Amino acid sequence: MQYGKVTPEIIAQLKEMVGEKNVLTEGLENYSRDEMPHPEPRTPDVVVKPENTASVARILQLANEKLIPLTPRGGGTGLSGGAIPVYGGILLSLEKMKKILEIDEANFTATVEPGVTLAEFYKALAEHGLYYPVYPGELTATLGGTIATNAGGMRAVKYGVTRQSVLGLEAVLPGGDIIQSGGKLVKCSTGYDLTQLIVGSEGTLAVVTGITLKIAASPKKAELLFIPFNNLHDAISCVPDILKAGIQPIGIEFMQKDIIQLMERYNNKELPLHDYEAFLMLFVEADTEEEFFAISGRIDEVCRKHNAVDIYMPNTDEAKRTLLDAREKFYFAVQAMGMSDLADVVVPRSRIADFVEEVKKISARHNIPIIAFGHAGDGNVHLQPVGEGVKDESIRKAIMTDIFKAGISMGGTISGEHGLGFAKKDFLPMADSETKIELMRRIKHAFDPNHIMNPGKVLDF
Amino acid sequence: MQYGKVTPEIIAQLKEMVGEKNVLTEGLENYSRDEMPHPEPRTPDVVVKPENTASVARILQLANEKLIPLTPRGGGTGLSGGAIPVYGGILLSLEKMKKILEIDEANFTATVEPGVTLAEFYKALAEHGLYYPVYPGELTATLGGTIATNAGGMRAVKYGVTRQSVLGLEAVLPGGDIIQSGGKLVKCSTGYDLTQLIVGSEGTLAVVTGITLKIAASPKKAELLFIPFNNLHDAISCVPDILKAGIQPIGIEFMQKDIIQLMERYNNKELPLHDYEAFLMLFVEADTEEEFFAISGRIDEVCRKHNAVDIYMPNTDEAKRTLLDAREKFYFAVQAMGMSDLADVVVPRSRIADFVEEVKKISARHNIPIIAFGHAGDGNVHLQPVGEGVKDESIRKAIMTDIFKAGISMGGTISGEHGLGFAKKDFLPMADSETKIELMRRIKHAFDPNHIMNPGKVLDF
Repeated sequence: MQYGKVTPEIIAQLKEMVGEKNVLTEGLENYSRDEMPHPEPRTPDVVVKPENTASVARILQLANEKLIPLTPRGGGTGLSGGAIPVYGGILLSLEKMKKILEIDEANFTATVEPGVTLAEFYKALAEHGLYYPVYPGELTATLGGTIATNAGGMRAVKYGVTRQSVLGLEAVLPGGDIIQSGGKLVKCSTGYDLTQLIVGSEGTLAVVTGITLKIAASPKKAELLFIPFNNLHDAISCVPDILKAGIQPIGIEFMQKDIIQLMERYNNKELPLHDYEAFLMLFVEADTEEEFFAISGRIDEVCRKHNAVDIYMPNTDEAKRTLLDAREKFYFAVQAMGMSDLADVVVPRSRIADFVEEVKKISARHNIPIIAFGHAGDGNVHLQPVGEGVKDESIRKAIMTDIFKAGISMGGTISGEHGLGFAKKDFLPMADSETKIELMRRIKHAFDPNHIMNPGKVLDF
Repeated sequence: MQYGKVTPEIIAQLKEMVGEKNVLTEGLENYSRDEMPHPEPRTPDVVVKPENTASVARILQLANEKLIPLTPRGGGTGLSGGAIPVYGGILLSLEKMKKILEIDEANFTATVEPGVTLAEFYKALAEHGLYYPVYPGELTATLGGTIATNAGGMRAVKYGVTRQSVLGLEAVLPGGDIIQSGGKLVKCSTGYDLTQLIVGSEGTLAVVTGITLKIAASPKKAELLFIPFNNLHDAISCVPDILKAGIQPIGIEFMQKDIIQLMERYNNKELPLHDYEAFLMLFVEADTEEEFFAISGRIDEVCRKHNAVDIYMPNTDEAKRTLLDAREKFYFAVQAMGMSDLADVVVPRSRIADFVEEVKKISARHNIPIIAFGHAGDGNVHLQPVGEGVKDESIRKAIMTDIFKAGISMGGTISGEHGLGFAKKDFLPMADSETKIELMRRIKHAFDPNHIMNPGKVLDF
């Protein structure tokens, strides 16, 4: 694709569309990268910050007409380089579209603009005794960004991922046309589901300008359990039996000793029962104290059958915070060590322990330590290689190839929740057949015939 | 589109592909219609019953090469004419692909062929203490058919519709290529979600040949509550407050006196509290007797605040069966009266009572009684006009137009769970903009450039 240039005339047109203050042509470093490890920064030619859907439509129409590559951007917290403007052009930042348009308590929906952050959204809902169960962890992420990547997080066991909470979208197509899809509707069998097609498409099909989300009543109690085991296989083998007992935790995380030690150093706080090899951390919702104790009693019973050493329930807010910090601040601890979140492979949840075993072998083969942890309840494993060696691109690619191959061979795929973006695009042919990728290309073409939308992401052409 | 003819040569090729016994050219009346009211039967030129995916692929390749229209068919229980071969050609019946390939208890998934019926599937799962929560009601429907229409049913409040339970698909594209999408995965952010695009596409994009579904542990107790009110507005206004109290029934149905009387006549059995104007029927799951009583106590409290007259809990199996029959056999009662299920409009659930009010006005305007009932928990309302008048096509269309207009004006859309098929295709432009419909056409074209897949359904070209 031969792209057009961002000329002074185009800059002037953009300024006319959104006002001078919302068009930046200097100091654009902050828009040249996201949180992708080993980023390859690429400064856009211009940053535009529209304040409403009509402006987005005009910008897209112009970009489409002049064949200017356009990269939408939310909070810039992505881990796959989805917001890096690899071909330059226009960086469309949704940061000024941050209105919570409606919280509809009768229908349990919220309608928002894409630039609202998770932190802002959780706070606004809490004031109504409501909450948004999707919890990807990074609170400065925008809702638009979580829709682009179909963000997952720690509560997918009970509530599913972002996709399951999106009821409707307003989106602008590359030519500037605005479409509405879905709505405040629990059921819909009226034509093709464009909502679900746009969710997870990483800004390569359309720009999302309005979002209707399913929300829920806040749980009365949200507790956690911390359960040590002598090995990971025992920990993982509990999970199906917990679910089969009819218990539905909101999340089930697994950790191994290496993580526990890392987090103790990072938070400078000792964790309980830290000498064991593997751990489950269960998040449980309940309406009453009695209900919580009934649930945790049943969890205790199941876990002991699988050789759990103990069941630890933090009984003060501080003890709970210590454990939560160990889980939630993990990514920052990793960053602080110069390590990188290289992959977020997903496998059938029964295969997590096998997959982690395989990763150990890959780690030994490349002589690079790899920390594995993640979501035992949903099969999503995060992989962090440690040390200087991994900065070498060829080694990094070789490790990623081996890790993806292992995951795929177990019925998994290469990204569970971060998306492909720029970082994993080249690996898509490992996961999917050429026939299927070609079909995706035709779908992309149906939305974006000039390929201006976030080029260089998800698919190769 | 100028379609090709089914020649004796093509029949011979089909016989070579699937065996003589699986190709029918006579006695095809059973394949000329589904359960759509006022059907316009259209006999296919040939019925083919492949027994495996490879055969489906060869049939589609042939149909695509010779430009023969191809209509996939499951149980033939659809209500929108989705399985009527309106252009003749090949009727591809999936009735012989009915293997339950795997029930994976560790991952809570089942992998099946599309011809497995709901009855067969529920039974097989029950033997493992498992269940499939999606419950559209018609037990002879096939799983493939429920995926084509994104079937809803009575348990959507807690478990969502078919879409939310489909984790992966195997599908054959019109050219004969086979694709795999998704898998035993709770999370996936790897390319465009073709699984969700195919779900609800009513056989117009691809033929589904394999399905991986999310299943659940069977609830220990499944109870129902029957709650009379003096008017529908009171009944409907309970629903958000029930959900806001943190109670999650699996389904909440509403009925009015007309339905109650109809069902008493049809089942020849008196229903409890039958003199009131409006009713909620709540389906509740619980693990223990105590838990059920705690939940029903809280429901009682909420409903009395909204002027519920009584809360009836059937305490014998027979009493429970009487009430279930009133709900489940409704469609047969309607059929027996020569009435038709004309529409399954969905509106935001808070608007049900307003919508039913509006339907009363439409009914009066056309001087044709219309019975409205349905899913209070998810906003899906079924509408049954009564009497000879509605057999007149222009009156039927005028009523449908008015009903759809009312639903759309309240933020709803024209089909919640039955699909558009042939019956509602012409009304799509009322619900969606030409821009959006044109985008759907381009997506259709990306899958099926020769438009052989179920032509005459969903979209006009």
